[in-house]
Amino acid sequence: MQTGRVIGSIVSTQKHDSLVGLKLMIVQYVDGNQEPLPSYEVAADTVSAGIGEYVLLTRGSSARHVFGDDEHTNSAVDCAIVGIIDSFDK
Amino acid sequence: MQTGRVIGSIVSTQKHDSLVGLKLMIVQYVDGNQEPLPSYEVAADTVSAGIGEYVLLTRGSSARHVFGDDEHTNSAVDCAIVGIIDSFDK
Amino acid sequence: MQTGRVIGSIVSTQKHDSLVGLKLMIVQYVDGNQEPLPSYEVAADTVSAGIGEYVLLTRGSSARHVFGDDEHTNSAVDCAIVGIIDSFDK
Amino acid sequence: MQTGRVIGSIVSTQKHDSLVGLKLMIVQYVDGNQEPLPSYEVAADTVSAGIGEYVLLTRGSSARHVFGDDEHTNSAVDCAIVGIIDSFDK
Amino acid sequence: MQTGRVIGSIVSTQKHDSLVGLKLMIVQYVDGNQEPLPSYEVAADTVSAGIGEYVLLTRGSSARHVFGDDEHTNSAVDCAIVGIIDSFDK
Repeated sequence: MQTGRVIGSIVSTQKHDSLVGLKLMIVQYVDGNQEPLPSYEVAADTVSAGIGEYVLLTRGSSARHVFGDDEHTNSAVDCAIVGIIDSFDK
Repeated sequence: MQTGRVIGSIVSTQKHDSLVGLKLMIVQYVDGNQEPLPSYEVAADTVSAGIGEYVLLTRGSSARHVFGDDEHTNSAVDCAIVGIIDSFDK
Repeated sequence: MQTGRVIGSIVSTQKHDSLVGLKLMIVQYVDGNQEPLPSYEVAADTVSAGIGEYVLLTRGSSARHVFGDDEHTNSAVDCAIVGIIDSFDK
Repeated sequence: MQTGRVIGSIVSTQKHDSLVGLKLMIVQYVDGNQEPLPSYEVAADTVSAGIGEYVLLTRGSSARHVFGDDEHTNSAVDCAIVGIIDSFDK
Repeated sequence: MQTGRVIGSIVSTQKHDSLVGLKLMIVQYVDGNQEPLPSYEVAADTVSAGIGEYVLLTRGSSARHVFGDDEHTNSAVDCAIVGIIDSFDK
């Protein structure tokens, strides 16, 4: 999984059915030392993450399966926020 | 998911059956600040995106599953446009 | 999907069963302006692409599923040529 | 699979159900010569790896399937530690 | 698929069950001109590749499916050597 920081969200009215009702957050990747990286991702939120919080991201089929209930078997999600990070312990 | 801007389309007559009938758009990636990046993708459109519009891309099996009806169970798609972005809120 | 140009092929006698009988082409990636990139891929051909032709590549499980008939359910393919590009319209 | 070195762990109270009970380790990638690389991953541990140990990482659906028992069929994991490396023999 | 050259192997006693009995080779990527690249992978061998040989690598679910018999349905493998390259024809 990757780590990032929530910096905003996107609004999309015309979108795939499986994205309806999901919070689509803009996340800036951070490295292992919580330094911001020059790369971003739009991630579907599953843990009510807020702006500025450090979060755990999962990608690919794992993100799709996180939304893998009957309704979203063919979810268009390929990245999801799956945790709010309390601390990086090193 | 990633963000990009539609800059064109490709024409391919000789192609895999599962791509027949799909609009194959050329998308230039943009970062979290909507700045264009030097990387591109061909994405199958699902929301009638037009040239110049900012779009949401999904990739890998999530893109394949977006076309996952009976006819396209083995779709060759690995990237799809799944939303038109109205705004980036930061 | 990504775009590339066919520049050659590889010969491999000792290979996984699922690759037997497939044409394994060397493809150099090109960007959205058809400029060659310093990265390459070996792709299983599905559309009889020739040397020098611009092609559409799919990767990951989508490539595996393109060869997803009964015989190749566990195909070792993770990249396939799935279209010959007639034109890039921008 | 990739190689890395365990440098810490993250604590996340608010997380996806499928991550509950898993040890989430911060791993710094190392190259084939065990030199540290400037990239990191959070990986779910399956072999009780300790801080400072060199480990083998698997990613994507392979990591999800490593946690693929009945309870975790839709695991949010996309990276797992699947081996402690005794030696790199070259 | 990608191309690489076998430069060694790793030994891992404490590892996921699905990796037991597999030869885990260290492979250095090479480009389309067989020039070595500064990136490496650990790949499970399926064709008895030896040190110094040029090989064909598959990654992700395609690698997992190569080991997809009943015993290894949840294989931890995400990269496999699936061919020994006799020649690069360009």
